[in-house]
Amino acid sequence: MEDSKIQKRVVGVDISTETTTYAIVDVRGNIIAEADFPTTDYPNINDFVTVLCERIIELVEANGGYESIRSVGISCPSANYVTGNIVNAPNLSWKGVVPLSALIRDRLGLAVGISNDAHAAALGEHAYGAAHGMKDFILVNVGVGLGSCFFSNGNEHHGAEGYAGEFGHTCLIPGGRRCGCGKQGCIEAYVASKGVVVTAHEVMEESDKPSLMRDISNLTPREITECCKQGDELAIEVYRRTGELLGLGLANYASIVNPEAIIISGGISRAGRFLMEPAKAAFEDHVFHNIRGKVKIQVSSLDNRERDVLGASAVAWVVKEYSLFK
Amino acid sequence: MEDSKIQKRVVGVDISTETTTYAIVDVRGNIIAEADFPTTDYPNINDFVTVLCERIIELVEANGGYESIRSVGISCPSANYVTGNIVNAPNLSWKGVVPLSALIRDRLGLAVGISNDAHAAALGEHAYGAAHGMKDFILVNVGVGLGSCFFSNGNEHHGAEGYAGEFGHTCLIPGGRRCGCGKQGCIEAYVASKGVVVTAHEVMEESDKPSLMRDISNLTPREITECCKQGDELAIEVYRRTGELLGLGLANYASIVNPEAIIISGGISRAGRFLMEPAKAAFEDHVFHNIRGKVKIQVSSLDNRERDVLGASAVAWVVKEYSLFK
Repeated sequence: MEDSKIQKRVVGVDISTETTTYAIVDVRGNIIAEADFPTTDYPNINDFVTVLCERIIELVEANGGYESIRSVGISCPSANYVTGNIVNAPNLSWKGVVPLSALIRDRLGLAVGISNDAHAAALGEHAYGAAHGMKDFILVNVGVGLGSCFFSNGNEHHGAEGYAGEFGHTCLIPGGRRCGCGKQGCIEAYVASKGVVVTAHEVMEESDKPSLMRDISNLTPREITECCKQGDELAIEVYRRTGELLGLGLANYASIVNPEAIIISGGISRAGRFLMEPAKAAFEDHVFHNIRGKVKIQVSSLDNRERDVLGASAVAWVVKEYSLFK
Repeated sequence: MEDSKIQKRVVGVDISTETTTYAIVDVRGNIIAEADFPTTDYPNINDFVTVLCERIIELVEANGGYESIRSVGISCPSANYVTGNIVNAPNLSWKGVVPLSALIRDRLGLAVGISNDAHAAALGEHAYGAAHGMKDFILVNVGVGLGSCFFSNGNEHHGAEGYAGEFGHTCLIPGGRRCGCGKQGCIEAYVASKGVVVTAHEVMEESDKPSLMRDISNLTPREITECCKQGDELAIEVYRRTGELLGLGLANYASIVNPEAIIISGGISRAGRFLMEPAKAAFEDHVFHNIRGKVKIQVSSLDNRERDVLGASAVAWVVKEYSLFK
């Protein structure tokens, strides 16, 4: 009888280029225990899987035991939920097709779900954040890359092969900037980290006005935001241009999907109003007229530190429960 | 006992700018009876509803009777399935918000569903055509306007307010051609009827080569296709440019939705290979790399004459059965 009262927990694993964070999370999104290690220490995928599984087992044994865990969810760049694989990840050292979901499932004997960071973030916002209760919304994650995910009538949209949401590689400016993917004019080439820095250099070259940015040798989007906060005119112009292009791209996306809301997460969203005000204005200028004024655009409401493991944990809840040892 | 064997039928109504066609359709998409009248004869919506309902009752009484009809489906430009209204239709004489679904339901005492032409066409292709059995596909309808609809995991995607699929009014060329919707650079301004004719005039002005198009006073896309078939170099160039832009737009759409297939219907699709070959080439150049070579792009397989009422009849099957008189 006691058993049926047990509220199961999940393990959420956020793999980013630099750090892998893993946590035990309960049904309400409380993080019970958490730890991390450098992703970059394990350029060989088998070493990575061995260490990750050992460390998960250690954390689980110290916090409620194996029986308390329902499943494992992983958030990882270039991951595909439908196949369970990481596919041609440009920002990880594991190349080609890596069947990470199967590798971890076989070691741990638990159901494992894996999604790319934007899909995991969308599930996290739906379960615990700004998209709670929404049936149709778009999440856009803007950081080093630009990923997205949308929900259709209450369900995550995967598409025919799990590659849905590659908004970052839609063409915003035909013949425009070269993108890391090899194509030209992708929105990622303007709105994600590198693009913002390119725009900053363009803005500085076009003008002879003074700017705090001119004194920074390796300019980052975070530093540009700091300059904005100090009233730096050119830095504000950088995010004005970035926001305008983001708003145009979001208008195209929303005209196709007609979401209730668009949630922006990721490092670039920390530019706050410097990005979001021009983005919202451009959005309203360009979106299909019947939905003008009707789409909420907001920055993620989840705490930065928690967001990534909560997204990963939300992936764990959508996989079917399975245990090799029961 | 006999009653339980009755295979119910539906009424499909296709309202186009010029003509309203209505038909009784069985579960397999056989058209049992069909008739039409000019839409333009009834600029007042109440007159239109009265005549349409009288004519439907007449057709139904002569072909199996009221008891045989499950529901009514309507395909109409600018219609919204979620609200049952026609909303700000630029190409119909009924202005503002018209609650067409409720008006017809109240007269006929039957469940009524209404969708815009692209959504109805997608349901028709899914029920009876090229998209049969597909869970994730995009339908793009290119004629006077450019509409679309996509399916997500087996279901039509409506979006938060039923306005999903407005691909025609996504911006393809920032700062480009003025669209009928008031914005600039919409794909509709390049790829739908008027846009193709504008491109034809651009192509003729840029060149001093002879062309059959030069002798036609009121050029139409259909005539440009005829010129292509006769090997007219400039006419072929018109559809090459049109196809290239369509392919770029479809690549953006597919990168977001990751469909199994894209089905093209509508008058412009009759340009066949002159449009589709450059469209497919541009699509593969621009689509997200992981789905390159994996999305089927094809012209609707339904017979032109049948397609519109079959689409409308498919809308009738997705509404919940309801009868005022039972």
